[in-house]
Amino acid sequence: MVQRFDQNPLLHPQTIAPSMEGLVVECLLNPGAFRFQGKTWLLLRVAERPVQSEQEVSALTIDPTTKSGLSILKRRLDDPDLDYGEDPRGFTYKGQQYLTTLSHLRLAWSEDGIHFQVADHPTLIGQGPLETFGIEDCRITSIEGRYYLTYTAVSGLGYGVGMMSTEDWQRFERHGMILPPPNKDCALFPERIDGYYYALHRPTLGSEGLGGNNIWVSRSPDLIHWGEHTCLLKTRPGCWDAVRVGAGAAPTRTGEGWLEIYHGADEHNRYCLGAVLLDLDDPTRVLARSRQPLLEPTAAYEKTGFFGNVVFTNGVIEDGDTLTVYYGASDEVICGATFSLGEILRTLE
Amino acid sequence: MVQRFDQNPLLHPQTIAPSMEGLVVECLLNPGAFRFQGKTWLLLRVAERPVQSEQEVSALTIDPTTKSGLSILKRRLDDPDLDYGEDPRGFTYKGQQYLTTLSHLRLAWSEDGIHFQVADHPTLIGQGPLETFGIEDCRITSIEGRYYLTYTAVSGLGYGVGMMSTEDWQRFERHGMILPPPNKDCALFPERIDGYYYALHRPTLGSEGLGGNNIWVSRSPDLIHWGEHTCLLKTRPGCWDAVRVGAGAAPTRTGEGWLEIYHGADEHNRYCLGAVLLDLDDPTRVLARSRQPLLEPTAAYEKTGFFGNVVFTNGVIEDGDTLTVYYGASDEVICGATFSLGEILRTLE
Repeated sequence: MVQRFDQNPLLHPQTIAPSMEGLVVECLLNPGAFRFQGKTWLLLRVAERPVQSEQEVSALTIDPTTKSGLSILKRRLDDPDLDYGEDPRGFTYKGQQYLTTLSHLRLAWSEDGIHFQVADHPTLIGQGPLETFGIEDCRITSIEGRYYLTYTAVSGLGYGVGMMSTEDWQRFERHGMILPPPNKDCALFPERIDGYYYALHRPTLGSEGLGGNNIWVSRSPDLIHWGEHTCLLKTRPGCWDAVRVGAGAAPTRTGEGWLEIYHGADEHNRYCLGAVLLDLDDPTRVLARSRQPLLEPTAAYEKTGFFGNVVFTNGVIEDGDTLTVYYGASDEVICGATFSLGEILRTLE
Repeated sequence: MVQRFDQNPLLHPQTIAPSMEGLVVECLLNPGAFRFQGKTWLLLRVAERPVQSEQEVSALTIDPTTKSGLSILKRRLDDPDLDYGEDPRGFTYKGQQYLTTLSHLRLAWSEDGIHFQVADHPTLIGQGPLETFGIEDCRITSIEGRYYLTYTAVSGLGYGVGMMSTEDWQRFERHGMILPPPNKDCALFPERIDGYYYALHRPTLGSEGLGGNNIWVSRSPDLIHWGEHTCLLKTRPGCWDAVRVGAGAAPTRTGEGWLEIYHGADEHNRYCLGAVLLDLDDPTRVLARSRQPLLEPTAAYEKTGFFGNVVFTNGVIEDGDTLTVYYGASDEVICGATFSLGEILRTLE
């Protein structure tokens, strides 16, 4: 049912230009996907970090005063104000938290959907106090002639869902944080249902332990303000999606319902893809769901990498019965696969 | 500056009628407060649990099929489907989570604001899948002639902010969950600012560890759908509000700004009250804040109880320069204290 592209991985970190001198692109992750001006476009998540030296530790920070919008903070390892703490992702300096690796979003485009050319600089970087640790995993939904970008806004204040919109991919309007932390994996429906916009999203289990990592659905009169939050799809003990589920790209309208490709993770942090079918008129109603994954990490590039055993999608292109699913593999490379919509629907229970 | 009522505690669990036979009222907590028909009203959080026996374990559940809206689930201790797990607050039976103690909301009223008569049955109990573990800590804000109730909706799906409204305290309209989990401590502003409604709320640190327990502010065109979430007030390392801060009741309009009495907790889970002043025209701007707490747990009933060293408010009544703050003490009893608004303002830095 699934056909991985022979050319996988389509994009590697090694082929991407860093945003500025002194940086290394460490991972390419989880692209949004859309059609625009006759081409297929990806909005890649590019994670990069400063080259580290033996005497110093370096963090990447958002810095609106520089040309690249980024700057590198270097501190000597013996600096008494430096505190490594327990998190390998960063350090604290004079009480301020820093990350060694930061993600931005970068466009890539293709005539055939397989061979992509990647921009040589970031398209979008974090902005303001809620995005100091970068922006990640952007979903793109075309609604009423405008592209809406929902992404994970990351900072020391937590991660929530930020939104921007654009018509021309040159000028972007920022709409602020639409879902407060801890929340991510937000996919907008491509059209209004009974007058309201709808979104899938993933509130995260709180540190106090009550709750879960389930997919919720909410609605909005204007895309910016959201309410009527309800839980839509729960993790399933004992299954491939036992511990964490999260929406992928915008749901696809089919004759049988809204089809959403989502990711699920088990207790070993193995990420697979499956599908769920929602009622066309009431997307808070689940009609059917994948018992088995549609895509599992089995190819070498899916099993081994920066974080192995991961396939994760937030970019899907529809073309008749064919769904082209772009996905991040092993949190390191970008891949693609095609599915038959009709075949997916027949597997749902 | 603070004058505790001589009659404190004003209300004890022992004086409250349980919702049904077989239950014990364990704690009275954190009342909302409002004026209505010339009286002072509290909306108490009443936590009750089944009387436990030696052979059985009992949970309290929401049950719309019974007269009280509640029912008691009893299981023998040697039942093989019973799993205590690690959480003393409940157990799991056949994979379903149960709590021994559940909260509902109950009205109490007073001519003088000190001597309260309490309803002999719940005023509001949890409803639907997002409130199966009860409803807690309700803030009440009168906006444009209607009372809006924002409360913590608790279930196995997490805790978020639910909202209802009423004009007559007889019929209530439910507006669903307005802020997804994990979130609590939501206080609405009593009037629109530049056309928008505003709310303070407290997203909780996620289990993944990034973020904090800070007060956020958001806005809404209609009170039901919320967006433009930003972080307003952070915890302060080394201070009385080092680990957790959360809004109290609706902010009070003063000549100098919106005054909000909030709670802060330190690393020892000691809860105190302090104040923050926000810009009248832009409540996302902090003008000043308490360096020292306005109210600390020092009285015997504040230091010892179900959970000692706690003062927590979500109910404030304004009368000229006097703020009457109703508060829960030691998670067990209801107390009151008065403050001078002018004096509070002079302490802020």
